[in-house]
Amino acid sequence: MYGSVENVKTIASLGGGPIGAGWAAHFLAMGYNVKCYLHEDSEKDRFIKIIKTAWDILEKVGISEKASLTNLFISTKISEVISGSEFVQESIPEVLSIKRELYKGLGTLVPRNVIIASSTSGLTMTDIQTSCPTPERTVIAHPFNPPYLLPLVEIVGGKKTNPKAVEWTKSFYKLTGKEPLVMNKEVPGFVATRLQEALWREALHMVEAGEATPEQIDTALKNGPAPRMTVQGQCMAFHVACGEGGMATNLDQFGPALKLPWTRLKAPKLTPSLRNKMVSACNKMSQGKSFEELQRQRDLSIVAILNAVKGSQS
Amino acid sequence: MYGSVENVKTIASLGGGPIGAGWAAHFLAMGYNVKCYLHEDSEKDRFIKIIKTAWDILEKVGISEKASLTNLFISTKISEVISGSEFVQESIPEVLSIKRELYKGLGTLVPRNVIIASSTSGLTMTDIQTSCPTPERTVIAHPFNPPYLLPLVEIVGGKKTNPKAVEWTKSFYKLTGKEPLVMNKEVPGFVATRLQEALWREALHMVEAGEATPEQIDTALKNGPAPRMTVQGQCMAFHVACGEGGMATNLDQFGPALKLPWTRLKAPKLTPSLRNKMVSACNKMSQGKSFEELQRQRDLSIVAILNAVKGSQS
Repeated sequence: MYGSVENVKTIASLGGGPIGAGWAAHFLAMGYNVKCYLHEDSEKDRFIKIIKTAWDILEKVGISEKASLTNLFISTKISEVISGSEFVQESIPEVLSIKRELYKGLGTLVPRNVIIASSTSGLTMTDIQTSCPTPERTVIAHPFNPPYLLPLVEIVGGKKTNPKAVEWTKSFYKLTGKEPLVMNKEVPGFVATRLQEALWREALHMVEAGEATPEQIDTALKNGPAPRMTVQGQCMAFHVACGEGGMATNLDQFGPALKLPWTRLKAPKLTPSLRNKMVSACNKMSQGKSFEELQRQRDLSIVAILNAVKGSQS
Repeated sequence: MYGSVENVKTIASLGGGPIGAGWAAHFLAMGYNVKCYLHEDSEKDRFIKIIKTAWDILEKVGISEKASLTNLFISTKISEVISGSEFVQESIPEVLSIKRELYKGLGTLVPRNVIIASSTSGLTMTDIQTSCPTPERTVIAHPFNPPYLLPLVEIVGGKKTNPKAVEWTKSFYKLTGKEPLVMNKEVPGFVATRLQEALWREALHMVEAGEATPEQIDTALKNGPAPRMTVQGQCMAFHVACGEGGMATNLDQFGPALKLPWTRLKAPKLTPSLRNKMVSACNKMSQGKSFEELQRQRDLSIVAILNAVKGSQS
C-alpha cells in the first residue's frame, strides 16, 4: 500500500529551521536525495550553515557510501520539492493554522501512497489533519534535537491516520538508523518532552525560590542522574539500584518517599495495579539477567560515558 | 582547624548497605585505609561482595598506586572503626531517631577536628545534629548511586554547622576525584534528587494513566533527553538549542509552552527576575564561546556518549 521502506530514495524536508535542517543532514548522511522547502530565499544561508556544521560531525560518526552534499536540493516552491519525493518530513513553524493550511495543500499535492510525517513537538496529528483531504497517511514523527544525532523519534497517528501508516513510519525510521517509539495515545508533549518538562519546571521553581542556581542544576544533572539515565532510563535505574528486590523493593520500601516534598509535583497514588505494572515491566526488561550482571553492565556503561565526555571535551 | 585535606590517610565508613559499601570501594580505590562499621556480622558477606563487584570496575577505571583491598578493615565495634580515622562518612539507615542517637555518640567519640559527613538523601543536618555535642563539624555529603562511579556529591551544613567544615568537606571530595556541589540552603531532596523525582513522578503518572509503559519511558530517556543532559545539563541544553538567542529566546519565544499541559507540574510564573537569572547564568556558562562552538562541542560529546554506550554493551 505504502510501498517498501527500502524503495525510498528521495525525501522532502519542509521547513528552514534547525529541525528541518537537522533532518536534511540526517537523511543526506544516510545516502538519500533530500529536497528541502524553505519559505524564503533569505533562509538559505543559515539553513546551509546548519547542515554543514552537522555534516562535519556526521562524517566523524560515519556516513553512507552514497552520502553526498550534492544530493541536496533547495527550493522555495513546494511543488518542486514534493515532485519525486517518496517520503515527506514536515518541520514548519508550530502554529496550528499554518500547519493545517499546509496539510490541506499537501493532501492533494503528495501522492496518496507517500507518508507525510510531522516533526511537531506540541500539536497532535488529530488537530493538524482536519483539513487534509488524504489524512490517513499523515503521522507525527517527533525527533529530539539535534535530529541528526539523537536516535529517538516518537511516532503517533491522529484519529484519521491508518495504523498501517504508523507501522510503515516506524519501519522507515528504523531503517534510517533511528530508535522509533510508537505511542498508543496522543498525549501533549509525547513521552520524552513530558519527562524533561517536569524536570525543567522543577528547575525553574528552584531558581525562582533561590534553592539552586542554573549552574548548580546543570552540574548536578551532568554528574549524577543524567549519565545513569543514559544507560538505564529511570525505571531500570531504580530497579537495579535496589538489588535483588528490584522495583518491588523500590516501591514497597521507598514508596513513602513519593509523599515527601522532594519535588513540587505530587505523585500518583501507588495502587497495587500501578505497582504491579512497574514491577512486571522491570522484570521483563531485565531479560532474566541477575542483579550482579545488570549492575556490572550499568557500571561499565557509566564508566564508558564519563570517559567519553572527558575525552570529547579535552 | 580541621587540618589539611591532604593529611587524611584513614577514613571511617559507617553502614553496611550499598552506599556504605560503595563509599568504602571509592576511598579504597583512591588509596586510603578504610575502616568500616557494620551493625551486624551477618552483613559482612554481602558487604564484601558489593565492594568486590565495585573493585572489578574501579580497576578498569584506574585506581591509585597505593590502593589495595588489604587496606580494608571491618568491625561491628564503632569505637574500633573511629579510632585513627581522620574523616567519617556515615551511611546508616535513613531513620531520624537512629541517626540522632548515632551522632550523639559520635559527638564525643570522634575527635573534634574530624569532619563527620552524612550520606543521607532525605534528612537535613539541622535535624540530625540536634543531640550531637559537637555539631559544628557535621555536614551532609550526599552521593549519587553508585557512589564509587558517579562524581556528584551534594554538600550542605545544618544550622549549627561551621561554614569552615563545609569548605573543608568540599576540598576533601575534590581531592578524592569527586564533583562537590555546595548548596546554600537545606532543601528536601537537595538538587539532583529533586530534579530526578519530578521526572520520576511524571513517569509514574504516565504509566498509571496508560500514556506510556515503563519500557517506553526508559527508551525515550536513553535515546533523547538523557545523553544531551549528560553533556549540557538542562539549562545549557535549552540555551544552545536556541542558537544565537540562547536562553533569552527559549524563555521569550517558547515561554508560553510553560503553560501547556506538557507535564502535570505547573511552572512558576516567568517573572523578569527569573528570566534574567536564567539568561545571565547561561551566558556566563557559555564562557564567551560562540553558538557554533557550543553546538559543535555538544555534538562531539553526544556522539562520544552514544558510541560509548554501544561499545560497552556489545
